[in-house]
Amino acid sequence: MNSSLRISGRRPDEMRAVTITRHYTKHAEGSCLIAFGDTQVLCTATVEESQPRWMRNEDRGWVTAEYGMLPRSTNVRMGREAAKGKQSGRTLEIQRLIGRAMRAVVDLQALGKRTIWLDCDVIQADGGTRTASITGAFVAMHDAVTGLLKAGLIRHNPLRDHVAAVSCGMVAGMPALDLDYQEDSRCDTDMNFVMTGAGGFVEIQGTAEGVPFTRPEFESMAALADQGIKALVQAQKLALLKG
Amino acid sequence: MNSSLRISGRRPDEMRAVTITRHYTKHAEGSCLIAFGDTQVLCTATVEESQPRWMRNEDRGWVTAEYGMLPRSTNVRMGREAAKGKQSGRTLEIQRLIGRAMRAVVDLQALGKRTIWLDCDVIQADGGTRTASITGAFVAMHDAVTGLLKAGLIRHNPLRDHVAAVSCGMVAGMPALDLDYQEDSRCDTDMNFVMTGAGGFVEIQGTAEGVPFTRPEFESMAALADQGIKALVQAQKLALLKG
Amino acid sequence: MNSSLRISGRRPDEMRAVTITRHYTKHAEGSCLIAFGDTQVLCTATVEESQPRWMRNEDRGWVTAEYGMLPRSTNVRMGREAAKGKQSGRTLEIQRLIGRAMRAVVDLQALGKRTIWLDCDVIQADGGTRTASITGAFVAMHDAVTGLLKAGLIRHNPLRDHVAAVSCGMVAGMPALDLDYQEDSRCDTDMNFVMTGAGGFVEIQGTAEGVPFTRPEFESMAALADQGIKALVQAQKLALLKG
Amino acid sequence: MNSSLRISGRRPDEMRAVTITRHYTKHAEGSCLIAFGDTQVLCTATVEESQPRWMRNEDRGWVTAEYGMLPRSTNVRMGREAAKGKQSGRTLEIQRLIGRAMRAVVDLQALGKRTIWLDCDVIQADGGTRTASITGAFVAMHDAVTGLLKAGLIRHNPLRDHVAAVSCGMVAGMPALDLDYQEDSRCDTDMNFVMTGAGGFVEIQGTAEGVPFTRPEFESMAALADQGIKALVQAQKLALLKG
Amino acid sequence: MNSSLRISGRRPDEMRAVTITRHYTKHAEGSCLIAFGDTQVLCTATVEESQPRWMRNEDRGWVTAEYGMLPRSTNVRMGREAAKGKQSGRTLEIQRLIGRAMRAVVDLQALGKRTIWLDCDVIQADGGTRTASITGAFVAMHDAVTGLLKAGLIRHNPLRDHVAAVSCGMVAGMPALDLDYQEDSRCDTDMNFVMTGAGGFVEIQGTAEGVPFTRPEFESMAALADQGIKALVQAQKLALLKG
Amino acid sequence: MNSSLRISGRRPDEMRAVTITRHYTKHAEGSCLIAFGDTQVLCTATVEESQPRWMRNEDRGWVTAEYGMLPRSTNVRMGREAAKGKQSGRTLEIQRLIGRAMRAVVDLQALGKRTIWLDCDVIQADGGTRTASITGAFVAMHDAVTGLLKAGLIRHNPLRDHVAAVSCGMVAGMPALDLDYQEDSRCDTDMNFVMTGAGGFVEIQGTAEGVPFTRPEFESMAALADQGIKALVQAQKLALLKG
Repeated sequence: MNSSLRISGRRPDEMRAVTITRHYTKHAEGSCLIAFGDTQVLCTATVEESQPRWMRNEDRGWVTAEYGMLPRSTNVRMGREAAKGKQSGRTLEIQRLIGRAMRAVVDLQALGKRTIWLDCDVIQADGGTRTASITGAFVAMHDAVTGLLKAGLIRHNPLRDHVAAVSCGMVAGMPALDLDYQEDSRCDTDMNFVMTGAGGFVEIQGTAEGVPFTRPEFESMAALADQGIKALVQAQKLALLKG
Repeated sequence: MNSSLRISGRRPDEMRAVTITRHYTKHAEGSCLIAFGDTQVLCTATVEESQPRWMRNEDRGWVTAEYGMLPRSTNVRMGREAAKGKQSGRTLEIQRLIGRAMRAVVDLQALGKRTIWLDCDVIQADGGTRTASITGAFVAMHDAVTGLLKAGLIRHNPLRDHVAAVSCGMVAGMPALDLDYQEDSRCDTDMNFVMTGAGGFVEIQGTAEGVPFTRPEFESMAALADQGIKALVQAQKLALLKG
Repeated sequence: MNSSLRISGRRPDEMRAVTITRHYTKHAEGSCLIAFGDTQVLCTATVEESQPRWMRNEDRGWVTAEYGMLPRSTNVRMGREAAKGKQSGRTLEIQRLIGRAMRAVVDLQALGKRTIWLDCDVIQADGGTRTASITGAFVAMHDAVTGLLKAGLIRHNPLRDHVAAVSCGMVAGMPALDLDYQEDSRCDTDMNFVMTGAGGFVEIQGTAEGVPFTRPEFESMAALADQGIKALVQAQKLALLKG
Repeated sequence: MNSSLRISGRRPDEMRAVTITRHYTKHAEGSCLIAFGDTQVLCTATVEESQPRWMRNEDRGWVTAEYGMLPRSTNVRMGREAAKGKQSGRTLEIQRLIGRAMRAVVDLQALGKRTIWLDCDVIQADGGTRTASITGAFVAMHDAVTGLLKAGLIRHNPLRDHVAAVSCGMVAGMPALDLDYQEDSRCDTDMNFVMTGAGGFVEIQGTAEGVPFTRPEFESMAALADQGIKALVQAQKLALLKG
Repeated sequence: MNSSLRISGRRPDEMRAVTITRHYTKHAEGSCLIAFGDTQVLCTATVEESQPRWMRNEDRGWVTAEYGMLPRSTNVRMGREAAKGKQSGRTLEIQRLIGRAMRAVVDLQALGKRTIWLDCDVIQADGGTRTASITGAFVAMHDAVTGLLKAGLIRHNPLRDHVAAVSCGMVAGMPALDLDYQEDSRCDTDMNFVMTGAGGFVEIQGTAEGVPFTRPEFESMAALADQGIKALVQAQKLALLKG
Repeated sequence: MNSSLRISGRRPDEMRAVTITRHYTKHAEGSCLIAFGDTQVLCTATVEESQPRWMRNEDRGWVTAEYGMLPRSTNVRMGREAAKGKQSGRTLEIQRLIGRAMRAVVDLQALGKRTIWLDCDVIQADGGTRTASITGAFVAMHDAVTGLLKAGLIRHNPLRDHVAAVSCGMVAGMPALDLDYQEDSRCDTDMNFVMTGAGGFVEIQGTAEGVPFTRPEFESMAALADQGIKALVQAQKLALLKG
C-alpha cells in the first residue's frame, strides 16, 4: 500500500490526531472540544428537567441534538443560518443523525422525565464534522449523565454502551479512513459509520458521488471503519478517565 | 422460512405489487404514478431551459428533486408544510436523497444547460415513500429526456443507467424486503438501498432504531435489496416499453 | 347561439364532463377525486376530535379547508409553497372560500366539539380548480359525516343541504358556463357562484378583468350558474348513491 | 320603511358621513384620509419609476396595493402583522381586491414603464375598511397621476373613469347600505360592490354568513349599491375640485 | 450664536413646535397624535388583563411597546415590514427603547397582573420619530392608567414620574436640539436622551456617525437635552390638563 | 473605597483579566479569541472582494458585523436562533453596534470595493459580550487589513485608529468598571462606552434599569470607562505586536 495515495500523506487506515478536551465551557452539564485533525467541534450537553411536548405523560426521557457551523469555520464564509432565517437541509440532516446516534445507546426509561440537548457547534471545519460531532457529543452526554447519577437524580446509568462515528471513502480506487476536506471533496464514495463500543452498527450512510460502489468496496470500507471506531472509543475512554 | 413472520403475510423476499402508470398528468414533460402496494407517489419531471444560479457559466445542466406528502396521505392528518412555512428535516433529507440518486445516472454535460426538476408527491403513504419516489422519478425523468432527444435539443442520451431504490429491514431477527408502514414502525433496522441497473450502490442508508445490527445482518439485507432492485428495474423497463 | 364561439367547442351552457370518484384514498374519513374536464382535484375530509383553540369552551364544532396545487399541476411548473415558506394570497383566498362554503351548509352545534378539515389538492389544473374543490369537498365531507353518524358519534345529520360551485364568464360578449383555463385567461369577466342544493346563493365573486360588466350580463351569468349548480348537485347525489 | 330597523338609526339607503381630506401627508405623490363615519383610512399613492420584475420589457406600467391595520384600530388590539412575520389571508385578500379595482380604470400602457403603489392603512376601523380603502385610493392615485401629467412625464391621462366601493347587507331581512361594524357582524349577507363612475361592475363579492340569499335579495342590494356608488363618486369629484 | 447655522433656521436650543392631540382614536384606552414639527406619530395604549407568559405567577404587570412606520411616512416609500415578513433591526431597537423608557416610570407591582401595550405608528417622518414616540406614548399610557384608577381596578397610581425624550446633535461643530431629518442625516453625532420629569437619565444613546465626539461636546448636548425635556414634560402636562 | 462592594472582589476601577489569542482559526483572514474574564468571544474577519448591493457603483467598501451566542454559552440553554428562524432584537441591536464601531475607525474609500465581515460568536458568556466583541473584532479586522496591505491589494492603511469598548455600571451607588454577569443583572445603570485610541467617543449607550442616573454619576462612569479603554487599547497593541 502506497501512502502517497493520500493527499494528506496518511496511510489508508490512518486517522487524523484525535483530541478530546473535557470541561471546555463552564456552564454546560457536560462539554468537550473534540478535534479530528483541523476539524474542531464544541459539544455541550444540557439537562432540562422536562420532556418534549409530544412525549408528555410517557414514563421516559428524550435525547436530541442541534448542529451548527460558525460562519467562518469554513474556507469561504457561509451565510449565518440565523440571519437567513432557516437551517439548511444539510444541517437538519446532520442534527437528526447525531440525535439518533445518541439515542441508540441511551435507555430513555432510565433517564427519567428529562431531556438532554446536545449542541455540536463547528469552530473549524476540515471534513468529518458530523463524525467528530457524534464522537464528542457522547463524551459531553456521558459527563451530563454522570452528574445526574452523582446528584442522585437517577439511579441506574442509562448509557448502555459507547457510540462513535468515522468516515471512509474510496479515494482513487483505494479505501481510506477518516477523510479530511480535500479527500472528501475528491473521493468517489463517502461513507459514514456510526457504531457502538461493542461493534454493532447504529447507522450507515454511504453515497457514491461519482462512480457507484460495489459490495467488496463496501466491505473494505466497513473493515477500516471498524478499526477507526475502536480507536475513537478508546480515545473517549481515555478522556473520561481524567477527573 | 415461515411467511407468518411478516404481518403482511409476504415472504421475506417478496415485494409488494409494483405498478407504474406513465403519462399520469398532461402538463409535465414526464410523469408517472408509481405504487408499491398501498403507497402511491405521483412523480413528474419538468424541463427548464436554464441552469441554477450557482452553476452559471458552467457547461452542463442540473437535476434536482422536491418531495411532499399530501396532508391526508397518512393515517393521521399531518399539518401542511406550506401552511407551517417550512419543510421538515425529513422532507429535506428525502428530497436531497432523490436528487443525488437521479444525478448518479445522468451525464450532466450531455444534458446541456438546463435543469430537470423531479417532483415526488405522495398521494397515499404506507411505508417506502422515498424508495417509490426514486424508482418513479427515474421513469418520469426518462420520459422527459426522451422528449429532449426527439426534439433534437440534445444529441446523446445523458442517462447512463437505470436507478431504483428499495428498503430492507430486520423484522423480528429476520431480514425482510420492501417494508410497509406497519413493518417499518416495528422493525429494529431500516435500510434503504439505491442501486443502478448494473448493480452498483449509489446510496446506502441504514439506521438501527432498536438493537444495533451486525455485519452478517447487513449482508443478508444487501442480498435481498439486490433482488428487489432487479425486479424494480425490470418494472421500469416494462413500463417504458409501452408507447 | 353559435357554439363555435367557445374555444372548447362547447355550447355556452355546456359544462365539462364531471366525474366524482369516491374513496380515492384509504386513510381519510372521506375522500374523492373530482374532475371538471382536465381539472382534477383530490379532496379529503379529516375528522379531528378537538376544536380549534379560539373556539374552546363553545358547544359546537368547526369546518375548515386547505388548498394546494402540486408544482406541476400547471402548464409551467410553479414553485412549491412549502419550499418558498409561505402560501400565496391566491391560495389563502381560495381556502378561505372553500371553508366558508362548507360551513354554510353545516349545523356546527350538531357537529359537536370536533373539527372537519377539508384538503383540496390540485393534481391537474385546467381552470375552475376552486369550483371543483368546493364541489368535491362537499362529497368528502358527506362521507366523513356519514361515518360519524354510523359510529353513533353524532345523532343528527349536521348537513342542511348540498353546496356546489361553478364559474361563469363573459367570453367575447357572450355568457359561458364552467370556463376552462384558455377561456378563463381570455374572458372579460370571471364569476364564481357558490350555491346550495335549494338554489340559495352562498357566495358570489365576480371580477371584471377587462371591461366592467353590466347588470344584464350579471343576470345572464347567474342564470347559467343556476343550471350548472343543479347539474353538479345531481352529480354529487349520484356519486353518493353508490356504496 | 322603518328607520329603527338599523342599529345606527340610519335609513336603509343612508350612507355614513363621507369625508375625504386630500394632501394628508407631505411625502407621498398623492394622499388622503378618507372617513366613512368612524372608519378612517389613510391612503397614499407612490410613483416608482420602474416596473415589477415579472413585467420587464413590456411596454406598460403597473398599479398595485398594500393594506394594513394599525394594531389598535380595532376594538380589541390585533397582533401586529410585522411582528407575527406574515400578513393574514384577510389582508392579502383585501389588498389584491384594491389592486384589481384600481387597475380596472387605468390604461397601463398610457401609464408608461412605472409602478403606482397604493398604501391603505386603517387608522380606525368601524366596518367597511375595504370599501373606504378603494374609494380613497382612487383619490390618492388621481393626485399622483395629475402630478405625472403636470410634470410632462406622461402625455395622456391613463385614468379612464372613477372607481369606488360600497358594502350592502341583508339586516334582519332588509337590505341596508354601507354597513358599520355592528351591522356587519350581525347581518346574514355581506356584499361588496366595486363600480365605475359609469355604473359598470368591476367586482362583486358577496357572502352569506348565515342564511343563503336569493336573487331578489341580490337585486335589492345591487340597487342600493348603485345609489351609494353615485354618492361616493360625487364625493371624490368634490374633493378633487379643491386645489 | 448664529441661528443661520441650522438649516431649519432654528436657534441651537430651539425645538420644533410640539403638539399633542389626545383621544385621537376611539377604541384605545389611551391615544394621542404627537407632532414634533412635521414628524407625526400616533401613540395608543391598550390595557390587557393578562400578563406575558414568562411572567406568570409573579405579582406584577408589564409594559411593552411596538413601533412601526407607514410605508409612505418617509420621503421614499419603504417596503412594508408585514409584507417582508420581518421587522428590521432598527424597528426592534426602537421598540425595545420605548418599552424600557415607559417601564422606568411605572411601578409594575402597583399596575397589577395586566399588560399595557404601547403602539407607536409613524404617520409622517421628519427626524426624531423615536423621541416623539416616547413622549407621546407616556401621554397615552397616562390616559390608560387614569382609566384603570377611575374604574377602581387599581388603587395607587403606578406612574412615578413623567418620561420624555429628545435628540441632540453636533451640527457643524455646534450642539443643536431636536434634529429634523435633514439635520440628522448631516450631523456628526446624534444623541437621544430619555429623561424623567425630575431630570434623571433613563437612557442615553449617542453615536458618532462621522468624527468621534468629546466629553465637552457631550456636556453641551446634555445641557440642551435638559432644557428640551423640561419643555416636553410641560407640553405633556398641558395636554393632560384638558379633559 | 471598599473592595467588598463588588461581588467579584474587584476594585471599582479594576477590569477582569483580558486575553487576546490571535490566529485562533485557520481559515479566516483575521481571527482571535478574546476573553474578558470568563466571557469568551471568537472574532473572525472575512474579506470579500465585492460590495453590498445597495452600495454598487460607489467608490468605496463596507464593514459589517454579525453576532451570535452558542446555545449553551449561557447558564441556562438558549434556543438556537437558526432553529427559531429569526435573530432576536438583542442580537440585531448588538451586531449593528459592532458594525458602527468598526466603521468609525475605517476609511471606507481606502478599503476599496470590498467588504469586511466581522463575526463575533460567544463561546462562553459572563457579562460584557458586546464590549468584548468590539474589542476583539478590531484585532481580527486589523489582521485582515494587514493581509490586504501585504498582498498589495490596498496601498494605504484604512484604519485611522484603534477602537475598543467597555461597560460601566452603578452598583449599590458606586460606579464600577467592566461588569460581569452577576453585577450586570443587579446594577441600577448599565453603560457601554465605545471609544477610539485617541479617547474620542464613538458610541455611548446607557440604560437605567432601576433608579434613573444623574449627571455626576454619568461623569464618574465616563472617567472609569476612559481608564478601561486605555487598558484595552494597550492589550490590543500588545497582541498585535506578536507575529
